[in-house]
Amino acid sequence: MNKKIKIGIVGYGNLGKGAIEAIKQTQDMELVAVFTRRDPKDLNINDVKTLHISEASDYKNEIDVMILCGGSATDLPEQTPYFASMFNTVDSYDTHAKIPEFYASVNEAATKNNTTSIISVGWDPGLFSINRVLADAILPNGENYTFWGKGLSQGHSDAVRRVEGVKNGVQYTIPSEAAMDKVRSGENPELATADKHNRVCYIVAEEGADKAKIENEIKTMPNYFADYDTEVHFITEEELKRDHSKAPHGGFVIRGGNTGAGNKQIYEFSLKLDSNPEFTASVLVAYARAAYRLNQEKQFGAKSVFDVAPGYISPKTAEELRRDYL
Amino acid sequence: MNKKIKIGIVGYGNLGKGAIEAIKQTQDMELVAVFTRRDPKDLNINDVKTLHISEASDYKNEIDVMILCGGSATDLPEQTPYFASMFNTVDSYDTHAKIPEFYASVNEAATKNNTTSIISVGWDPGLFSINRVLADAILPNGENYTFWGKGLSQGHSDAVRRVEGVKNGVQYTIPSEAAMDKVRSGENPELATADKHNRVCYIVAEEGADKAKIENEIKTMPNYFADYDTEVHFITEEELKRDHSKAPHGGFVIRGGNTGAGNKQIYEFSLKLDSNPEFTASVLVAYARAAYRLNQEKQFGAKSVFDVAPGYISPKTAEELRRDYL
Repeated sequence: MNKKIKIGIVGYGNLGKGAIEAIKQTQDMELVAVFTRRDPKDLNINDVKTLHISEASDYKNEIDVMILCGGSATDLPEQTPYFASMFNTVDSYDTHAKIPEFYASVNEAATKNNTTSIISVGWDPGLFSINRVLADAILPNGENYTFWGKGLSQGHSDAVRRVEGVKNGVQYTIPSEAAMDKVRSGENPELATADKHNRVCYIVAEEGADKAKIENEIKTMPNYFADYDTEVHFITEEELKRDHSKAPHGGFVIRGGNTGAGNKQIYEFSLKLDSNPEFTASVLVAYARAAYRLNQEKQFGAKSVFDVAPGYISPKTAEELRRDYL
Repeated sequence: MNKKIKIGIVGYGNLGKGAIEAIKQTQDMELVAVFTRRDPKDLNINDVKTLHISEASDYKNEIDVMILCGGSATDLPEQTPYFASMFNTVDSYDTHAKIPEFYASVNEAATKNNTTSIISVGWDPGLFSINRVLADAILPNGENYTFWGKGLSQGHSDAVRRVEGVKNGVQYTIPSEAAMDKVRSGENPELATADKHNRVCYIVAEEGADKAKIENEIKTMPNYFADYDTEVHFITEEELKRDHSKAPHGGFVIRGGNTGAGNKQIYEFSLKLDSNPEFTASVLVAYARAAYRLNQEKQFGAKSVFDVAPGYISPKTAEELRRDYL
């Protein structure tokens, strides 16, 4: 057995917790420490060294890859370039519109310091992105469609909870079966986001609240619901706790393409996830392996999933993969 | 616009024809010539130079990548090492059990001559293989399942046509919905190939033949049908021509994995293809782009799809991919 890849985790939210679990499932990695902005003593993690984020620089020679588990809004734009100046990194930066500038700032830090940083890793961006690129390259005469869900949407759940008379509630984004069937038929329809998704809300109303008014207010809410086919169900607080406390998610990338004299070819990738953060963390951990290997090969700088050959994320050797998986 | 990638095709069967069509859909490639073992005059291809395979060596400096469209049984074990000694190549070698020795002989020829050969490209082996590796690396605690179909099986169609009283016929391999549902539920069942697939035959009987006897003989045929849930339908010659003359195929790679404290995560990839050879050829053409680029970067030797980063098969630049597809 080769020496294990030494991993650090920055951030102890749901993603950081998922990364700890995912590392446990590997044979070739070991977790050195979790770094946090909070008082490390408050984390109470069993068997894992917990340190303040300011101590990370002392671990330059003891950690091969830092898995950055912060958020995209404010954490990662600062943290990834900072950690990339000292460590190989992976992160799940997902503000699609700002990826080019994020890439540029990480690439500068990583190139200057001979580190390797794989950005925007997870499932979207991440596995979905890979499938959009492969499908597009193989079937140039076609159209890509991305559907999200069934998934709990944090932003929309917040929106329904702000409605007067709502005590608690959640919102699921659900891909429209009718739209998916159209896409799978290969007819490459024009579809707006609202055509592709329905919205289903489970609401706990305040006692005595006017449910018809709540339902109407949700269904007509601009931007969030007005353009969508929306269902509102009223449930009890107990039902909410029992049936809606997980963070499931998933989705579909489908491409319908034509080859030759009009033969239809349907390419489809999908995920159905009980736990969105645990799955995303599992993707990050697999790509941490790739970051380590790319760095060993002196492939420095910022990378995306498009730059990583599939074999690099597997713990198996090239020989094993050709023999058992090809 | 950069100079176009110059492509040669070896073999003018269904795969070679599909490759000609796929190249037409690209902006960055041009077809230089098709090489054949037959008399080139007999091919009658419009607007495409047709040459005898023995002339290929004269084109060493005029072709960037040779797409090898021969069969795996006898053509490719000879042709790939031979052409790899002169050209970058891609092929669809699919005898899974012999891939290690095939790889070794191609790698020797390519390494010695500074060429790049991507072997076993297509959908299985190929895209399915990529998904088996990605899913396994991301969800180590889980199980991979591959289902094939709905697809016309040449070997099984030949078998039913050998039954006494059968005038003509085809056989489709169909994934079992019940087995797929079990896999998608995340319970990771034990399934034999026969549990995962059903077989459906469309038979044209000779006039006066005993249909019950034919049906029984097919359903009890060892290896081919006896272990499977098999349907036999009798149709007319006209119906066979009208409804069963295409070569559809496809299939599914599904992995059910567990993360954390038993959260189920379902990863699924599928293809539904009107034309198996045209789709396979489209994958070969996209990977020809990768073979050219890898060779430009001096990555010589035999490669598999596991060694090729997704961005290499796309005609788009890394910047475009990050901006529009990530």
